[in-house]
Amino acid sequence: MNSEKKIAVIGGGSWATAIVKILCNNVSSVNWWMRNDAAVRHILKYRHNPNYLQSVEFDLNKINVSTNLVEIIEPADIVIIATPSAFLVKTFENFPVELLENKVVFSAVKGIVPEYHAIPARFIHKTFRTPYSKIGIICGPCHAEEVALERLSYLTIACQEDVIAEEMAEFMSCRYIKTTASDDLFGTELSAVLKNVYSIASGICAGLGYGDNFQAVLISCAIQEIENFIDEVSPIHRDVKSSAYLGDLLVTAYSKFSRNRTFGFMIGKGYSVKSAQLEMDMIAEGYYAVKSVMEIKKKFEVEMPIVEAVYNILYEKISPVIEMRILTEKLN
Amino acid sequence: MNSEKKIAVIGGGSWATAIVKILCNNVSSVNWWMRNDAAVRHILKYRHNPNYLQSVEFDLNKINVSTNLVEIIEPADIVIIATPSAFLVKTFENFPVELLENKVVFSAVKGIVPEYHAIPARFIHKTFRTPYSKIGIICGPCHAEEVALERLSYLTIACQEDVIAEEMAEFMSCRYIKTTASDDLFGTELSAVLKNVYSIASGICAGLGYGDNFQAVLISCAIQEIENFIDEVSPIHRDVKSSAYLGDLLVTAYSKFSRNRTFGFMIGKGYSVKSAQLEMDMIAEGYYAVKSVMEIKKKFEVEMPIVEAVYNILYEKISPVIEMRILTEKLN
Repeated sequence: MNSEKKIAVIGGGSWATAIVKILCNNVSSVNWWMRNDAAVRHILKYRHNPNYLQSVEFDLNKINVSTNLVEIIEPADIVIIATPSAFLVKTFENFPVELLENKVVFSAVKGIVPEYHAIPARFIHKTFRTPYSKIGIICGPCHAEEVALERLSYLTIACQEDVIAEEMAEFMSCRYIKTTASDDLFGTELSAVLKNVYSIASGICAGLGYGDNFQAVLISCAIQEIENFIDEVSPIHRDVKSSAYLGDLLVTAYSKFSRNRTFGFMIGKGYSVKSAQLEMDMIAEGYYAVKSVMEIKKKFEVEMPIVEAVYNILYEKISPVIEMRILTEKLN
Repeated sequence: MNSEKKIAVIGGGSWATAIVKILCNNVSSVNWWMRNDAAVRHILKYRHNPNYLQSVEFDLNKINVSTNLVEIIEPADIVIIATPSAFLVKTFENFPVELLENKVVFSAVKGIVPEYHAIPARFIHKTFRTPYSKIGIICGPCHAEEVALERLSYLTIACQEDVIAEEMAEFMSCRYIKTTASDDLFGTELSAVLKNVYSIASGICAGLGYGDNFQAVLISCAIQEIENFIDEVSPIHRDVKSSAYLGDLLVTAYSKFSRNRTFGFMIGKGYSVKSAQLEMDMIAEGYYAVKSVMEIKKKFEVEMPIVEAVYNILYEKISPVIEMRILTEKLN
């Protein structure tokens, strides 16, 4: 374990908080950036993030937390970005990207960058000029809340460069986290993005009154759609039944706590997109993802009836009742 | 639709009741056998099965219900067996098997025949001398309770003879049931048997306090084990991500109502096998299945760490805590 490497974590949400907690098991110090100044002061005084995973206590000797992005990133060898995808562009808006030169950049973003219809790896490559070989992804199946509870979870760390994936897999491995290294940067990240769309679909169907029998068919078809899509976009050998793909889909689509599923459920119950978003006081990642996937999909020949149904409901204002009834004819 | 064919349904449980309900949409009359004489009289008087899916009302012009197995089977062209696997041998104990000659026999048994360590298809073949080409299986994902509620469900009908599979797929298809024909008799039936073992595993883990993150990994590994096993036992082309395999696993392993999951949950909570069975007043299918799968497995080279863990816990009295901790090291 090379604990001399300096790691910076970017983001103040639940997933970033969980990642910092995990890293603290293995490295002597973590640089941690978050936007919210009050949260930083709270952490420095009370050792807990006031907004997310409040139960997690941090050793202040091990974290260097600040709202200054340059200060946090400059000394780091590895940068882990864990902001919501919708804030990614804004976070790095005026950032001097030359500071990222020669750094390894990991995405733990779990979503698509809506402004670019791009997965975070692509955004990182285009914006920071980081070569793809030095870009990685940290993916689930993993609710941050269960990391806070130290419940056993498995993460997949993907990078085209084996050494980088394996090193991060070691950094992220601890008593309650087991890690697997993978070389499937694009596949795992696209799958992580897509699962949010299927989670919305699952919620819509639950809201409409479809039962568990149908959900099981929906999810079986969803993992087949994921496979068709990522095999088309990034044709390398992979098994989508692995936990990074299927597991990640399951933990999201079957979770009552998933924001995407809840959003879908409200749509299924008859809320408009606007009112569901207002009520939830947030925007579900899958809402952006489905639009971007439809964009990306244009370049490829791939059938994705579930994605299309979600898109039609959210963006074309087709009635969920009708759209899902049409969808049921296409599944088996 | 050839509604002249006569169908007999064997069994008085929830799944048999659901199947009769479905068939009544498509055929003019169904012969229905059940052991319980009081239940037969109740149905003939009140048009509801008093013990299962009580809400379902039957048109007495469409069902011919009786406790006389010979009377029910003799005039039938197609026999659908839907008893619990543990009662299969007993049901046909003194039955004159020559009566089954030239009949198509479908299994909707969802379990292994414990006395023979055999899937129902094999039992039917050996006991009734029905050729495999005239044996079929009706499989899920399908909780009978949701059929009663007429919630949209998908069934897969498998038979090596396409014509037979397709004919039954038509008989079983209605407003709330969509069917797919398949030629994978052994694979779908083995998968249906195995899912109950994984459902027990899922329950044990939940009982021990493992969370949703781990469940997602467990189920991802389970479908891979299913694939390894059935590809070894019956090597034909199939996609285990289809609803007959993955969907069936999901609907069972993620259901709070699954008897197998509940049984596992009690084991995880510290109940002994005996006391869990007493408390539940029934024996979970997966309890027999895991023993038989271990037997079948001896002839093949296939790694099944989850099946082995469940077997060790249920039959070798290894502590669930220890056995599952060992298992966590083998998954990823």
